[in-house]
Amino acid sequence: MKEPAISMDIDRRVKIVSGRSGQEGYAMEIDFKKLPKFKSLPVREGAPAESSWGVFGDDDELGCLNFLTPKGVIDAARLVRKGRVFRLDTPINYAKPPLFNRNPARHTILSFEQYGLLGHDDSIDNYNTQEGSQWDGLGHVGHIRHRAFYNGVTDDQIKDGPGGKLSIHKWSNRFVGRGVLIDVCKYVTEQGRPIDPLSSAVYSLKDIQDALKAQGTRLRPGSILLVRTGWMGAYQAASEEKKKEMAPLEALRSCGIEPTSAMVGWLWNNRVAAIGTDCPAVEPWPWDFKDEGALHYRTLSLLGLPLGEQFVLDELAEDCAGDGRYEFMMVSVPMNLEGGIATPPNAVAIK
Amino acid sequence: MKEPAISMDIDRRVKIVSGRSGQEGYAMEIDFKKLPKFKSLPVREGAPAESSWGVFGDDDELGCLNFLTPKGVIDAARLVRKGRVFRLDTPINYAKPPLFNRNPARHTILSFEQYGLLGHDDSIDNYNTQEGSQWDGLGHVGHIRHRAFYNGVTDDQIKDGPGGKLSIHKWSNRFVGRGVLIDVCKYVTEQGRPIDPLSSAVYSLKDIQDALKAQGTRLRPGSILLVRTGWMGAYQAASEEKKKEMAPLEALRSCGIEPTSAMVGWLWNNRVAAIGTDCPAVEPWPWDFKDEGALHYRTLSLLGLPLGEQFVLDELAEDCAGDGRYEFMMVSVPMNLEGGIATPPNAVAIK
Amino acid sequence: MKEPAISMDIDRRVKIVSGRSGQEGYAMEIDFKKLPKFKSLPVREGAPAESSWGVFGDDDELGCLNFLTPKGVIDAARLVRKGRVFRLDTPINYAKPPLFNRNPARHTILSFEQYGLLGHDDSIDNYNTQEGSQWDGLGHVGHIRHRAFYNGVTDDQIKDGPGGKLSIHKWSNRFVGRGVLIDVCKYVTEQGRPIDPLSSAVYSLKDIQDALKAQGTRLRPGSILLVRTGWMGAYQAASEEKKKEMAPLEALRSCGIEPTSAMVGWLWNNRVAAIGTDCPAVEPWPWDFKDEGALHYRTLSLLGLPLGEQFVLDELAEDCAGDGRYEFMMVSVPMNLEGGIATPPNAVAIK
Amino acid sequence: MKEPAISMDIDRRVKIVSGRSGQEGYAMEIDFKKLPKFKSLPVREGAPAESSWGVFGDDDELGCLNFLTPKGVIDAARLVRKGRVFRLDTPINYAKPPLFNRNPARHTILSFEQYGLLGHDDSIDNYNTQEGSQWDGLGHVGHIRHRAFYNGVTDDQIKDGPGGKLSIHKWSNRFVGRGVLIDVCKYVTEQGRPIDPLSSAVYSLKDIQDALKAQGTRLRPGSILLVRTGWMGAYQAASEEKKKEMAPLEALRSCGIEPTSAMVGWLWNNRVAAIGTDCPAVEPWPWDFKDEGALHYRTLSLLGLPLGEQFVLDELAEDCAGDGRYEFMMVSVPMNLEGGIATPPNAVAIK
Repeated sequence: MKEPAISMDIDRRVKIVSGRSGQEGYAMEIDFKKLPKFKSLPVREGAPAESSWGVFGDDDELGCLNFLTPKGVIDAARLVRKGRVFRLDTPINYAKPPLFNRNPARHTILSFEQYGLLGHDDSIDNYNTQEGSQWDGLGHVGHIRHRAFYNGVTDDQIKDGPGGKLSIHKWSNRFVGRGVLIDVCKYVTEQGRPIDPLSSAVYSLKDIQDALKAQGTRLRPGSILLVRTGWMGAYQAASEEKKKEMAPLEALRSCGIEPTSAMVGWLWNNRVAAIGTDCPAVEPWPWDFKDEGALHYRTLSLLGLPLGEQFVLDELAEDCAGDGRYEFMMVSVPMNLEGGIATPPNAVAIK
Repeated sequence: MKEPAISMDIDRRVKIVSGRSGQEGYAMEIDFKKLPKFKSLPVREGAPAESSWGVFGDDDELGCLNFLTPKGVIDAARLVRKGRVFRLDTPINYAKPPLFNRNPARHTILSFEQYGLLGHDDSIDNYNTQEGSQWDGLGHVGHIRHRAFYNGVTDDQIKDGPGGKLSIHKWSNRFVGRGVLIDVCKYVTEQGRPIDPLSSAVYSLKDIQDALKAQGTRLRPGSILLVRTGWMGAYQAASEEKKKEMAPLEALRSCGIEPTSAMVGWLWNNRVAAIGTDCPAVEPWPWDFKDEGALHYRTLSLLGLPLGEQFVLDELAEDCAGDGRYEFMMVSVPMNLEGGIATPPNAVAIK
Repeated sequence: MKEPAISMDIDRRVKIVSGRSGQEGYAMEIDFKKLPKFKSLPVREGAPAESSWGVFGDDDELGCLNFLTPKGVIDAARLVRKGRVFRLDTPINYAKPPLFNRNPARHTILSFEQYGLLGHDDSIDNYNTQEGSQWDGLGHVGHIRHRAFYNGVTDDQIKDGPGGKLSIHKWSNRFVGRGVLIDVCKYVTEQGRPIDPLSSAVYSLKDIQDALKAQGTRLRPGSILLVRTGWMGAYQAASEEKKKEMAPLEALRSCGIEPTSAMVGWLWNNRVAAIGTDCPAVEPWPWDFKDEGALHYRTLSLLGLPLGEQFVLDELAEDCAGDGRYEFMMVSVPMNLEGGIATPPNAVAIK
Repeated sequence: MKEPAISMDIDRRVKIVSGRSGQEGYAMEIDFKKLPKFKSLPVREGAPAESSWGVFGDDDELGCLNFLTPKGVIDAARLVRKGRVFRLDTPINYAKPPLFNRNPARHTILSFEQYGLLGHDDSIDNYNTQEGSQWDGLGHVGHIRHRAFYNGVTDDQIKDGPGGKLSIHKWSNRFVGRGVLIDVCKYVTEQGRPIDPLSSAVYSLKDIQDALKAQGTRLRPGSILLVRTGWMGAYQAASEEKKKEMAPLEALRSCGIEPTSAMVGWLWNNRVAAIGTDCPAVEPWPWDFKDEGALHYRTLSLLGLPLGEQFVLDELAEDCAGDGRYEFMMVSVPMNLEGGIATPPNAVAIK
């Protein structure tokens, strides 16, 4: 087994203090140039092809989020110039009926009357962390053939509580950095090649690269990439009847980005820390769970790259088109759920 | 009825687009100097004494969060200098047993095995948004005598769904700005007057002002104020047995800040947008629900000032003491829950 | 408006004692001969055709359960001859995946360790009272055209709490009486005309009458009728794959009894108190919600006749075939849920 | 290890058919005379003193419910003479606030409007099966010193799902038999020695025996015993304020029956199948979890005797006093919850 392929400029300060509610560690600097290129993966003997397993150490649970460094945070803050804040999450229960056969979350407002107080608190039941906008954690999908999650984590290591591997609470203070929006939906439309977001249409890597170029945006290493596919806007504009038709897992159709080796190679080589889109699965839906080439396997399982789905990007895109700046500070604050599989992004883009 | 007491530099862009999952509006600039001083409150005829009702318009639901302006966001971003990010929330279910007679949230990890997929998602039940770190929304507590919430909202207007008044989802993209930590716990300890955080000890306004002065920190208008009382650290250090004793609502004891007119006058005159502490009730616990002078009434009901409770501040405080900088960018991303009463802060301090 | 069409032999002892957890009333004797025949319905001016509205009084919420009388309870007990007890409910979460797009109930076993006790209790979340074996309460389905539930109850009167109309808690102590099983599945099979229970096949009224005759069973007034269609056994015998296919509301197919005026006329004229079957909807599934002739409208809305679905009848049927006795004592003990819409039958047949 | 101490008249027909929703077995006859007396316990070498472990076989999970035989069911049915049915359960959420620091169950009525149907179903969250009237299952409390549950079952064998040992679903069709009410509350009051049910007052074995004698009731082997202590009526009559005071686990006080060897010896020797009372813990509350002599250990853990708590007995008692008959048919239909720890009794007394 090889040594971790990167040198770490500062110590990773992982503090695991029994019973303490605090940080599990802070982001560290990394030398992007020393990181292996996609074609050199894997670096660990026996790891699957095109996997990053071992690149950040054998015990790493953060994957590409390691690309978000203190320097990146500082650079991101410098992108804040007009003080406008865009929320990137859907409201809870936005999809009516819920997608994928899910049942709605139930919100109950409780009265404090019995205590002699004019007041309330909330209770939420049946809350699926993937019911709307979401980051898929790295414990969400494991590789179909290798029967393992990112970095070789096994199914029984994914569990509730502080010891659960690949838990989204480990992202607690790690999801801050430069955000870049690629409005590929706008681009192909302007090129006279609009797609139907409510079909299984595919945006190619070239579409995305060309859109980026057309925007004049540079994709610097250590960015959180947002891709606007147009699905969310089309869904919101659909009739009640149409939404009902789309709700079952079997009936849903959605556009997405091409699920290829070329795509993930480009993401890895650009040191993309996470990719979020406004469609249900990043890649087109449905995707074939039996197909090893699915993007979910290539990203979550092999590269440790978080996938963001059902994001709200339209107002942000409008603003970017208006001022020509597709870069911003992005802050995502996951649920602090020990053993959590996924989380609403709780994300803002700040320009 | 008087006109709103302030002029607004830009239009408030409230967009209410049917069925759309987007922003409800962006922060606007305000002229802090034109805002009334505490002694001039109320500005609206018939409004309760020492209330801000009407200052931001008769339909305002944001209260002191209006102090968070675009300029404030830009200034806050300039405080990011070393790229370190501190998460200010407890993990879900950190208190064992839960405080205030609550029952724990239940987290279930569901398998996708039935779909032929190695994977999982989460379901959360019995999730009380006030079970750990939290912002009290303005619908949390209404005034005992006036039988009304901030700005005169009535009990029946507090309800589930997009039409619920004072809902925390209205803060979706509004809780970004300069954060200031006052480590009053450290200050009184260094002064040789340590208090027991697990008693109903009171930090006076003078303590807080003196601590601020000792830190050399300036409290500029439009800041989110964090006050470290020492409760959270003391709780975490307590034995299992002691935690069990503290859990019932009747048995809990906690320090807090003085619940006086002088205190809230100082907060208002300094244009504090929100105040968060690491104790369970900001003011000492228990507080008398029948006492009109309680801080909960003075802040949530009368001024529209959000209260933050059970925050995690120790590591942030340690860092501030280390570099002498008690100011930072603060980003809080509330749950996007329509009709929500309270929310975990989902907050980070970025230095 | 006419007088109630029946004379009541004893006073209805409805006790509504504030704050008391007790009976809401006991069953009363009725003179079956004085009750109107189906062709004489309705008895109340303005009531829908073929409805029993007003027969038991304008405030009645029990409908055909009024057919279960004290004498009927005594007669039922006399049917207990060998002391064998058959449970007629599926286990909670028996259907994997759940039918009708529902999500499974979640059962959490909680430890008392924190109290120094070796022990546990249960918590159940996301429990849909119709997830398995069930009685549809009379608040489950209202008439599509009349926009009303049994006896003219309106939608806003169906609500949580003790004041909720047509609540299943009103059946608390009323669901005891003679049970009669008609094994129509066995009958048509023996006649060389087997149906596929997993299709929308229909058992005709004649099939049911002939099966009854072949069994040599007499359907006396005031009986709870159980009809074995064969669906449950076929479902349980199906492969995992097949069960997955059947789960979505749109994909499910089930046999049932003919949804005609003749059918409900026969049930009414025989004073059937409730009808339970081992299929998902008593009538074939899917049924057209827009068709006024659907059995759900004819029974729940018009006659006040409870429908029982997904019952477990195979072992009972085997026993009845063995000893030739298709009559038994039946005791169903609904959830004591104030404002409840439906309930697991919690039913036993005692022979 | 000795042989099981009883001969079984018919084979126990335990059917475990994979994937089948049916009976797990039927009650069998037993020869009450051949069963060991209390003084002869234990019958199994190494079993705890005063335990019945092994009496019904080493794999038995039913304990004293084995006393409910087919003959007993037949005899019970003969007690049905006037056709009156008494429900013995509280409504869900009857205690306001809930006892023992529990939080209320949440009942949500869901609309079918989205399907074009005037109708509803229910969803229940946070449902603790011990929130009101309840049978403690044998997995509820294990022995403090032996660290084991009835018949030596270990903590890790108590689990969710069909394989969970001592699960209440195993009582599915087994809780039918003769019921006997002892109204000891009425007896001591008539003797001029009333107790305060809301204190930790103790009913002695002699009180109970004398009450039985005064009633002229014979306690035949194989009965379900109900004891009216007066707690439920006193609770229901208490003010809101008083109920609030009683809610916390630490503050609750309740009368109960004496937790002695003599008491459980008398129950065992009379072949009592289960004992239910209208107080929260059968024995007085609070009981000392560290005291090996507690009734919970003596019954649930050592004898396998189900405990019933918070039953509703007042109307039944009034009726028994009226006609002098304290015997009746009792039918309890537990939740069919695989792996369940406890259950509402879903019980009726039929006279």
